[in-house]
Amino acid sequence: MPQDGPVIAVGPTPDPEFDAAITRGGGVPGPLAGAEGLVWIDSTTVPTDIPDSVRWVQLPFAGIENFVGSGLLEHYPGITFSSAAGAYSTTVAEHALSLLLAGVRGLWHRESEWDAKGAAPRVGLLGGSTVAIVGAGGIGRDLAPQLRALGVSVIAVNRSGSDVTGAVVVTADKLDEVWSQVDHVVLAAPATAETRSLVDASVLAQLKPHSWVINVARGALIDTDALVDALRRGAIGGVGLDVTDPEPLPGDHPLWSIPNAIITPHVANPPQHLRPALLDRVEINVRRVANGLQPLAVVDRAKGY
Amino acid sequence: MPQDGPVIAVGPTPDPEFDAAITRGGGVPGPLAGAEGLVWIDSTTVPTDIPDSVRWVQLPFAGIENFVGSGLLEHYPGITFSSAAGAYSTTVAEHALSLLLAGVRGLWHRESEWDAKGAAPRVGLLGGSTVAIVGAGGIGRDLAPQLRALGVSVIAVNRSGSDVTGAVVVTADKLDEVWSQVDHVVLAAPATAETRSLVDASVLAQLKPHSWVINVARGALIDTDALVDALRRGAIGGVGLDVTDPEPLPGDHPLWSIPNAIITPHVANPPQHLRPALLDRVEINVRRVANGLQPLAVVDRAKGY
Repeated sequence: MPQDGPVIAVGPTPDPEFDAAITRGGGVPGPLAGAEGLVWIDSTTVPTDIPDSVRWVQLPFAGIENFVGSGLLEHYPGITFSSAAGAYSTTVAEHALSLLLAGVRGLWHRESEWDAKGAAPRVGLLGGSTVAIVGAGGIGRDLAPQLRALGVSVIAVNRSGSDVTGAVVVTADKLDEVWSQVDHVVLAAPATAETRSLVDASVLAQLKPHSWVINVARGALIDTDALVDALRRGAIGGVGLDVTDPEPLPGDHPLWSIPNAIITPHVANPPQHLRPALLDRVEINVRRVANGLQPLAVVDRAKGY
Repeated sequence: MPQDGPVIAVGPTPDPEFDAAITRGGGVPGPLAGAEGLVWIDSTTVPTDIPDSVRWVQLPFAGIENFVGSGLLEHYPGITFSSAAGAYSTTVAEHALSLLLAGVRGLWHRESEWDAKGAAPRVGLLGGSTVAIVGAGGIGRDLAPQLRALGVSVIAVNRSGSDVTGAVVVTADKLDEVWSQVDHVVLAAPATAETRSLVDASVLAQLKPHSWVINVARGALIDTDALVDALRRGAIGGVGLDVTDPEPLPGDHPLWSIPNAIITPHVANPPQHLRPALLDRVEINVRRVANGLQPLAVVDRAKGY
């Protein structure tokens, strides 16, 4: 590790805990003017007026489509941007598994009396089923072994075809062949032009009457109107959504009144889990940059994530 | 395998699927008079007038306290009784994990509007926590690796001290030292005189404000009044009960109106899961008996399970 580490700024406002993480990683917290790196920790604004000295910007989210949509990447072609992809995968994978089990085991139905005969048919068995993880990056790599431990066969779909322990990997170009082969689906893909309305009426028609669809990625991956229609017809078992389209889901949206639609308001990675995970990621990436390595989760400008 | 297998009867009424399981196991389905074995598949009655020819009786449940309480074992001192312990552990372990995750991740609270700030504090993280499985037999052996896959440290408590893969084993005589060391508790112990009110006011006082208590065993293991009191005071995080005391839980019982009490009406092993699992167990045990081996899950007359 160099004696004098790179100067890294925190924005848009100072934050002593992030300064401490930079120091732990071998960097020197400092002002943006003259800094080599910028750690952006705000969810509502996009960095502007980044000086020429900055060669690396750390973004605070795994899904960075809002930053991409703002034109940030094009505006700074010489800067390496890194997302927080993978930093939050532990809590998001756990949330996906929780929603899937709550669905399959019938816990979405709040019992108000002791009615075993009424409740029993709602209790399925996840073990022995086949689950597709669509967009198997960091979340999928965490989730696949959890599902395997329950006796689930896992099909992991990703663009690269890269290995996922415990899963059979299928490349995204063969996704069409997957839907009819699986019992349940977990969506964990980034929001891009290609993944918009990935789950539409035609896909929902290929799923089974007991299939649960879990979305812990971005609401735009599902055609919401087609989903509501499928749920009303009983065409699928149910849906577990931590993200919706539109989001926030309006108070009068039909999804709120569909019993087998479990909705959590984008809290798979709640603030109390996010901050320590992002502090860890900043420390790791400052250490990598200080040692001349690429940071983790460098944004691919062509892919947009 | 012998040419002529043992004659095994099914009671109290004929059942062709169980006859077929007996045949697959190398036995010969036949009338009770003169049979060597009896497979009892009824949940509401206890076998009587068992002829002297019978040396083995298969009972249909994992928890057999009702059969024990009827005096069945004492009445037939020469017969080997086997329970179905372990046959249903896959579905019961999965139910326990589902209840635990629904509790820890805040899914017990049914969202009715998009309120991320309100919901986030309810979302905990099971990964990184410590969970005690109290009464770690077949269910515990299934559950421990599932919890490990989520990054949970598992303490398995059983009488024998026998190994449980993925868990630190503590013998039941040291259970008192466990409560204060764990985040969450899963009860999977048989109902005996020793386990009655195992979780009482003093145990509940040793748990943490975020602790969830899951019971997939028998209602009598928990002092229900003490539990209601702890929940009302916010002394623990919540409770997931597939079994209650009294059971069925009366319609006016206070537990129904406590939001962080998730109740399922004894459906961790619902009929549609039970029957195929019992058919498998009958086939296995007939094969063992036909080959001169002890059946699986022989009832220990001293322990009562």
